[in-house]
Amino acid sequence: MFSDQDFDFMRRALSLAEQSLWTASPNPRVGCVIVSQGRIIGEGWTQPPGKDHAEIHAIKDAKAKGFSVYNSTAYVTLEPCSHFGRTPPCADTLINYRIQRVIAAMEDPNPQVAGRGLARLRAAGIQVHCGLLEKEAHTLNIGFVSRMLHGRPWVRIKIAASLDGKTALHNGVSQWITGEAARVDGHAWRARSCAILTGIGTVRQDDPAMTVRAVNTSRHPLRVLVDSQLSVAPFARILADRNVLVVCANALPNRIAFFRSLGIELLNLPNADGKVDLPKLIYILGERQVNELHVEAGFKLSGSLLREKCVDEILTYFAPCLLGDAQGMFNLQAVAELNSRVSLQIHDARMIGDDLRILARVRRT
Amino acid sequence: MFSDQDFDFMRRALSLAEQSLWTASPNPRVGCVIVSQGRIIGEGWTQPPGKDHAEIHAIKDAKAKGFSVYNSTAYVTLEPCSHFGRTPPCADTLINYRIQRVIAAMEDPNPQVAGRGLARLRAAGIQVHCGLLEKEAHTLNIGFVSRMLHGRPWVRIKIAASLDGKTALHNGVSQWITGEAARVDGHAWRARSCAILTGIGTVRQDDPAMTVRAVNTSRHPLRVLVDSQLSVAPFARILADRNVLVVCANALPNRIAFFRSLGIELLNLPNADGKVDLPKLIYILGERQVNELHVEAGFKLSGSLLREKCVDEILTYFAPCLLGDAQGMFNLQAVAELNSRVSLQIHDARMIGDDLRILARVRRT
Repeated sequence: MFSDQDFDFMRRALSLAEQSLWTASPNPRVGCVIVSQGRIIGEGWTQPPGKDHAEIHAIKDAKAKGFSVYNSTAYVTLEPCSHFGRTPPCADTLINYRIQRVIAAMEDPNPQVAGRGLARLRAAGIQVHCGLLEKEAHTLNIGFVSRMLHGRPWVRIKIAASLDGKTALHNGVSQWITGEAARVDGHAWRARSCAILTGIGTVRQDDPAMTVRAVNTSRHPLRVLVDSQLSVAPFARILADRNVLVVCANALPNRIAFFRSLGIELLNLPNADGKVDLPKLIYILGERQVNELHVEAGFKLSGSLLREKCVDEILTYFAPCLLGDAQGMFNLQAVAELNSRVSLQIHDARMIGDDLRILARVRRT
Repeated sequence: MFSDQDFDFMRRALSLAEQSLWTASPNPRVGCVIVSQGRIIGEGWTQPPGKDHAEIHAIKDAKAKGFSVYNSTAYVTLEPCSHFGRTPPCADTLINYRIQRVIAAMEDPNPQVAGRGLARLRAAGIQVHCGLLEKEAHTLNIGFVSRMLHGRPWVRIKIAASLDGKTALHNGVSQWITGEAARVDGHAWRARSCAILTGIGTVRQDDPAMTVRAVNTSRHPLRVLVDSQLSVAPFARILADRNVLVVCANALPNRIAFFRSLGIELLNLPNADGKVDLPKLIYILGERQVNELHVEAGFKLSGSLLREKCVDEILTYFAPCLLGDAQGMFNLQAVAELNSRVSLQIHDARMIGDDLRILARVRRT
């Protein structure tokens, strides 16, 4: 059904979509290639929210280069939208410009679209095919898909450890286990997320800013701090730019009032044990349009998130060293038998500088 | 100095050498390609000890196919030998057959050769070049090189762990963390070793045979059991075929006498603490012509080997799961600062079935 050329053009569209990796949120990352007589005449990708979607960006690119898109083929990594959001429906624009053929990598999981965009194109007499490089397109927007289908972000825990699975020395020294290349790579993963979550333990120990610094991005993710007792110091670096949500659980009212008076957004979200209700927090972040939630937390909070089945993916940087008797990766109770272990699937493994990066997904049973 | 063709032929010679990976020991694994007028006319590799070396095997192959090796080029992955061992010097044979040119990947580190083979060829008017794909050739015989240069085998610890660095549950259940493909791969690593070392803890817990079973090999490595008190049960599976060396440290004389009466070889090798002197054991295995020592031991013995700087390489199979609060990989004391960690270099990482295999080398400081 799809030719080698179709694959090539869709691969190009996928790589264009990557240009919007850090900026499209909360919209999906989409790439578009417009082809006429076997030749690319326009290329586009999702512009920041409220600005052009990939199809419009590509059509404008073709026009700017003096080409007509009449009777051309559009390759898009996601079904063109059919609804009025911040921008008008892309499907209508493709129809108005008399595009002849549309190849989409996947349907839009957004319930407002979900096949209606493709149906509208077909109804207008446009040849429509869907499903080319669908898996790649799905991975590109794994967070958007999760939010659209399940109402919750894709939750990725980032962790750096020695090859024997230790994250810190007993004296608490944990920074710089991994190398500079891994640090930069980690910031790129922060940059693509909509929110970065950490816990009070990490803040107390390292006082991290949890901002994106090592790579250059125009969009800065919300920071989320899990702090049951609201014991964070008001001068902690994570609070500095106020682009932060602090989540507590029945903290003392005077503390809540104090932090609110500083202009810091607070959420009181206790569970039955008086801790922060993590699964509920994940859904609340989904409601706030968080597609990908990036977690950099310590032994305890990482373990709690895993135990409470909040984690979709673990991004581990293994440093080429052994630390011996030191802090482990996740606070998980001993399992009684191998069957009750947390089961994963290794999705990707590659060297980042001298470190080995492993991306593993949690298997749902 | 070397042409693309030279590289191709040497790569072929290296892949032929792999045919002797499980059978050449204690000799080095060598491959040879004989080329005449740009065409391969003979191929060979190291035959089992006492039989033909790679060069002779390749010359016989050419003759069997009706080719003359006169004026041909021989590509060998290791300098042809110049001494009488179990077989006559290969350098002389190449001279007698009037080979015109010899390309070697590396010099033979054997002090009995060490350049003398190449010198003899040069003296006979043969064009000689050395150093083509030297690194690959070195890796192929990493154990032989270690034994020739340092008198000790290359020591490789094999370990299977969950992604959070746990090797067993608290109840001791440790087998089958990794999958079937990893098990077979592990047996291939056993097959290439000259000896397989384990400890009494592993024998008591799992009663392993520690033989090569999942792959088919004609040569079976010596098993070495570290058992300070000589507390192994006489019916333990590791003792069954008597191809085993048991190493103790001041065990009771009646125990020693009993095991000797069963025909089991014993070595009493105490250190100052009354434990087995591991560094000394490594050198003794070197004297016994062990090139590669494969270690499959538990938390304690693996840790001791690392602490006593007996380990060159760690072969880890990471299973796609988390085990939580369970047995770690290596019994290593807490280090006070990051500088005193065991420093490694990741040499290779790849998927073996659903598991991730990492080969990491210990950095000597």
